[in-house]
Amino acid sequence: MSSLDTNPATFCTGDADSSFQPLNADDVRSYLHTSVDFICDYYKSVESLPVLPSVEPGYLRRLLQPAPPTCSAPFNVTMKELREAVVPGMTHWASPNFFAFFPSTNSAAGIAGELIASAINSVGFTWQASPAATEMEVLALDWLAQLLRLPPSFMNRTGAAGRGTGGGVILGTTSEAMLVTLVAARDAALRRIGSDGMAGITRLTVYAADQTHSTFFKACRLAGFDPANVRSIPTREEKDFALEPERLLEAMEADAAAGLVPAYVCCTVGTTSSNAVDPVGAVADVAAGFKAWVHIDAAYAGSACICPEFRHHIDGVERVDSISMSPHKWLMTCLDCTCLWVRDSLRLTGSLETTPEYLKNDVSDSGIVTDLKDMQVGTGRRFRGLKLWMVMRTYGAAKLQEHIRSDVAMAKMLEGLVRADDRFEVVVPRNFALVCFRIKPHGGAMAEDEAEEANRELMERLNKTGKAYLAHTVIGRKFVLRFAVGSSTQEERHVRSAWELIQKTTTEMMMEATEKLIM
Amino acid sequence: MSSLDTNPATFCTGDADSSFQPLNADDVRSYLHTSVDFICDYYKSVESLPVLPSVEPGYLRRLLQPAPPTCSAPFNVTMKELREAVVPGMTHWASPNFFAFFPSTNSAAGIAGELIASAINSVGFTWQASPAATEMEVLALDWLAQLLRLPPSFMNRTGAAGRGTGGGVILGTTSEAMLVTLVAARDAALRRIGSDGMAGITRLTVYAADQTHSTFFKACRLAGFDPANVRSIPTREEKDFALEPERLLEAMEADAAAGLVPAYVCCTVGTTSSNAVDPVGAVADVAAGFKAWVHIDAAYAGSACICPEFRHHIDGVERVDSISMSPHKWLMTCLDCTCLWVRDSLRLTGSLETTPEYLKNDVSDSGIVTDLKDMQVGTGRRFRGLKLWMVMRTYGAAKLQEHIRSDVAMAKMLEGLVRADDRFEVVVPRNFALVCFRIKPHGGAMAEDEAEEANRELMERLNKTGKAYLAHTVIGRKFVLRFAVGSSTQEERHVRSAWELIQKTTTEMMMEATEKLIM
Repeated sequence: MSSLDTNPATFCTGDADSSFQPLNADDVRSYLHTSVDFICDYYKSVESLPVLPSVEPGYLRRLLQPAPPTCSAPFNVTMKELREAVVPGMTHWASPNFFAFFPSTNSAAGIAGELIASAINSVGFTWQASPAATEMEVLALDWLAQLLRLPPSFMNRTGAAGRGTGGGVILGTTSEAMLVTLVAARDAALRRIGSDGMAGITRLTVYAADQTHSTFFKACRLAGFDPANVRSIPTREEKDFALEPERLLEAMEADAAAGLVPAYVCCTVGTTSSNAVDPVGAVADVAAGFKAWVHIDAAYAGSACICPEFRHHIDGVERVDSISMSPHKWLMTCLDCTCLWVRDSLRLTGSLETTPEYLKNDVSDSGIVTDLKDMQVGTGRRFRGLKLWMVMRTYGAAKLQEHIRSDVAMAKMLEGLVRADDRFEVVVPRNFALVCFRIKPHGGAMAEDEAEEANRELMERLNKTGKAYLAHTVIGRKFVLRFAVGSSTQEERHVRSAWELIQKTTTEMMMEATEKLIM
Repeated sequence: MSSLDTNPATFCTGDADSSFQPLNADDVRSYLHTSVDFICDYYKSVESLPVLPSVEPGYLRRLLQPAPPTCSAPFNVTMKELREAVVPGMTHWASPNFFAFFPSTNSAAGIAGELIASAINSVGFTWQASPAATEMEVLALDWLAQLLRLPPSFMNRTGAAGRGTGGGVILGTTSEAMLVTLVAARDAALRRIGSDGMAGITRLTVYAADQTHSTFFKACRLAGFDPANVRSIPTREEKDFALEPERLLEAMEADAAAGLVPAYVCCTVGTTSSNAVDPVGAVADVAAGFKAWVHIDAAYAGSACICPEFRHHIDGVERVDSISMSPHKWLMTCLDCTCLWVRDSLRLTGSLETTPEYLKNDVSDSGIVTDLKDMQVGTGRRFRGLKLWMVMRTYGAAKLQEHIRSDVAMAKMLEGLVRADDRFEVVVPRNFALVCFRIKPHGGAMAEDEAEEANRELMERLNKTGKAYLAHTVIGRKFVLRFAVGSSTQEERHVRSAWELIQKTTTEMMMEATEKLIM
């Protein structure tokens, strides 16, 4: 470190010759072409790499320098370390053998959009700070809203009747969409009860099914809701683990009767655990009686709703206050890209607007443009609209639908394979491209209480092979394997191979168990 | 839209031939090479493009299709629309004539890192979900912490004495860093006063100088602090608009005496408005008396602290609770990349941890790894560590320091030019690479109350030329022009040209004013 205390440039050979130009044309071209070659090689080889690496915690620090270098290095040195130290420690989300989580789907057009945005590197906090970035984001959101057949009330479009009150914004994660809508709903509820500042916050209550993503409960904490007022409504197997409107109503009525103020309901379309679908319309109807904000979290399954045959899952959306979904999950738009639409953007900006002097400008003052900083957590923002538009512009709606349908068809095929092997059972109905299954307990050799152990063992053995990566969940007290179809390089043969591996491993496990019994 | 109701693929010629492969090797290579060519052309031409475009609100929707296409298009069509519709509406942050906001500096290595990360597209919410992504982020943060000479208590490094309690995380914006630390401080203060849930939240108070970024006050709102309890401490010109410890102490003492609970102080090193520097050590000493959390926001100027001659600006950092800075601002790492370090990561994870069943795994259970989801707002996260590491690995500390010094030298040169022209004045001391100046009011032709109008007029005329883009601020009731040096393509000649344009425009304005007087 002491060498950094003086000007260390004098110690670096080759560095002192010319002034440093970080965007030197030759470097930009050569570093990026080298990176493109790396990416093509990576995609070509990723199928053969272990999906889940076998590295130990701390492995990277042992391979790379623990301190930052003083002198510059040729880019190839950086790339060599990337290949030799980083890649072997990756969990390969791009692998066709990745089935653990909802895939982060990707595409050539999506990556190209991200690349160009990162080179342009504009910060579109206000319209003026980057008109094209703001307008592109708004346009991409309106396009996607049309694919989803969202009601016009959610769109930025100016119709014959003038600008609507709806609006959208691209955020980084669903959690942010939840947080900003929770805050808007919180402030609206506080105004409604005439709260002096935050004094009334401990009276506000929020609701979601117990299958709702954990990040919702975290967002409630962040927004200052009282942990005791966050209701996790129990779901049941016989209702496919969806939120039951009757139970929601009961909970809201009980709270209202106790003098509390129902402020927000989160309604999930395609839960992470098992792809359960809360009934949007019925939930909206219940919430309306309490003037509570209803948000639809369709992070994963929202993408499927661009196909008419899946659109019914968000029927009733015209009666909710906001909806979010993440094209970075299932619409081939690389991380990060979460789209949030709200029916009344003024309630959002009312809670999130900030206008420091240095951001003031005539166009913003006029009120005819959207300053997207006022619909998000922070001020700075990336040019995320570009990649989303490039994906839709390049592939078109038909191919996007084909992509969804192909994934669902593969999942359906897998579901059939599981059902055809009577050692296994599909645990919940398959709605999209996630199959939740397990080794079935049966009266004889394997009782219910041994099933968890067997399924856990199966998952661990599978994941250790490096040839497949599955995750688990616990639903209705059952330990279940999650097989999420759809990584961008996946084909039917990968799903079939993984299933064969599951069958083979299960057979081995059962033979070992039988041998143990005999011995 | 109706065509989307049936399977529209049959209507698209050329689309039906083969199954859709979004990461088809040929497409990946050709789309990305096309994008690299676009980027190289863009950088070559950006100097000649108007920095601030002259487009009208709604221009993009008029140029592009209002509805998403059904059929796919050759990638060149997408690129053509990008060139012809999007680029002309950009505010060019990459232009060497951009001086309006703190630049979003960039580099070939940074873009390469972002590109590769977006192709790998892993989601490192837990260590297991992508060991290399987590370990690379932690390593990059520790490297940067060493360049900043942060105390070891902020680092993830395991020393002879075992793992410390410190830790870091890369977030999207400073606002997120503020929000998560505010929430941790809020919860710690509530525990301290034995609050039942959020009942005590209206007793908590937070503090920052009136020059603090507006996003801090927004973050306080998001975290549920009572607006009435957010103290904006007035600053004064004679103290260079820095937070005065005596005034902070006064405010905290008054609140404590009134039964309120000081919970958090935000201390800025390099304010957005004028680059004021709050005295870190003295602020920490005041806050310690109240057990309040102290956060340093060094979003912009933190990068300069990798040079020994600027490091004193964060002296006292060993006594604060957290510090954040954004390499996407001044360390050539494209958006987004905000580094947050905390001294006690357990206080952060205590407020932000969530562990749903499907993310449980043996390594996380063991407690020996960091699951970075527990130090941020959401769950999903990009592989941001890669680009930050690639920038440091490729360029080395010496070149990063050279880059900072070169920008500061250009700003110093500009400061000299401003001082040499007695029509102008430098309004606040220049600390880094931001020069705040204005046309000076003087007893005769221009009184103080006319200066604002003249400076506003100067800014508008300059920005309309397309040859320079400056922003303004109001500080100490003065309307001031902000000239931020340092966009990545900038050289001394651009700063000189902009200054000549400023002088020429001012001369024209003064001649016009004189002519009016004569007529």
